Amino acid sequence: MAIKESIRPGGRSARVQESIHAAVRTLLEEQDRASITVPQIAGRAGVTPSTIYRRWGDLSELLADVALARMQPDRPPLDTGSLLGDLRAWAEQYLDEISSEPGRNMMRDVQNSASIPCHCVEILGGQLRIILERYPHADSPRPTIDHLINLIVAPTVFRVLFSSAPLTVEELHRLIDIALDT
Amino acid sequence: MAIKESIRPGGRSARVQESIHAAVRTLLEEQDRASITVPQIAGRAGVTPSTIYRRWGDLSELLADVALARMQPDRPPLDTGSLLGDLRAWAEQYLDEISSEPGRNMMRDVQNSASIPCHCVEILGGQLRIILERYPHADSPRPTIDHLINLIVAPTVFRVLFSSAPLTVEELHRLIDIALDT
Repeated sequence: MAIKESIRPGGRSARVQESIHAAVRTLLEEQDRASITVPQIAGRAGVTPSTIYRRWGDLSELLADVALARMQPDRPPLDTGSLLGDLRAWAEQYLDEISSEPGRNMMRDVQNSASIPCHCVEILGGQLRIILERYPHADSPRPTIDHLINLIVAPTVFRVLFSSAPLTVEELHRLIDIALDT
Repeated sequence: MAIKESIRPGGRSARVQESIHAAVRTLLEEQDRASITVPQIAGRAGVTPSTIYRRWGDLSELLADVALARMQPDRPPLDTGSLLGDLRAWAEQYLDEISSEPGRNMMRDVQNSASIPCHCVEILGGQLRIILERYPHADSPRPTIDHLINLIVAPTVFRVLFSSAPLTVEELHRLIDIALDT
């Protein structure tokens, strides 16, 4: 994955990566994930399989990299004017995104990777940091990012991955209240 | 997986399943998970690959089934005489088990399955139910099993799967206190 970090935006290596990511996204829409192969992706992207193996090591790392790229937020969290409002808006959108079938598959791809799951937590933590820094003078002491991840993100993800039903919005709101009160 | 439920204990089908599970456990100790194949497992277990495909569908379902079997608790949760004590003892042992490398791989195998993740939550919920039912007259209103899963199990599992470091025992104790106070 180190290679990915050092990509010069717009450079050849970035264009090759984007064509490979695009091939994966298209194939994921066309067929069952379990049936997707590296040679198939390479064929779509117009590269050799060895290009993919050299850069990602194996298919699960590539799928995780594509999933991570999709999780990169395209805008800062909604600013509602209150810490509670911002956390609710952000958490409800996150719950929506990952409880869809594509969202659940993205979570699985991400955590099947050796290196990417932590990037995923960094992205979520970064979003939460933006929200927390909007309210430096909140009446009650501000929760830490880890606390918000443990009490809001973890149950949301766990229920999507392991339970028959995702969190309800009511459960999510209760967890946010608990995170802010403890 | 339905077949698994209907196995007659000690029957031929149970013996075949146990030999296949044993072959998987041995191979998992001998080599990298990614390199294990169904024909290899079949060879070790003395069955044909088609027996495995017929019963489990594919390798990920078999790995998940083996992981689930390993997660079946072999004894009831420790009875310490208090709800807090029982929850701490159970949660600390669970944290120990899943934050090991084999434990982490088991969690990944389980949640890569289509049908097994919910069984996993049922097992955890069953353990928590045993603990809760020991204290019918607890002073504070007893938490629900879902509440304990959201606040104690979810962060424990999430941190193992997605974070660079598992929960510390101190964090775990704090989450248990929160679960009992909210």
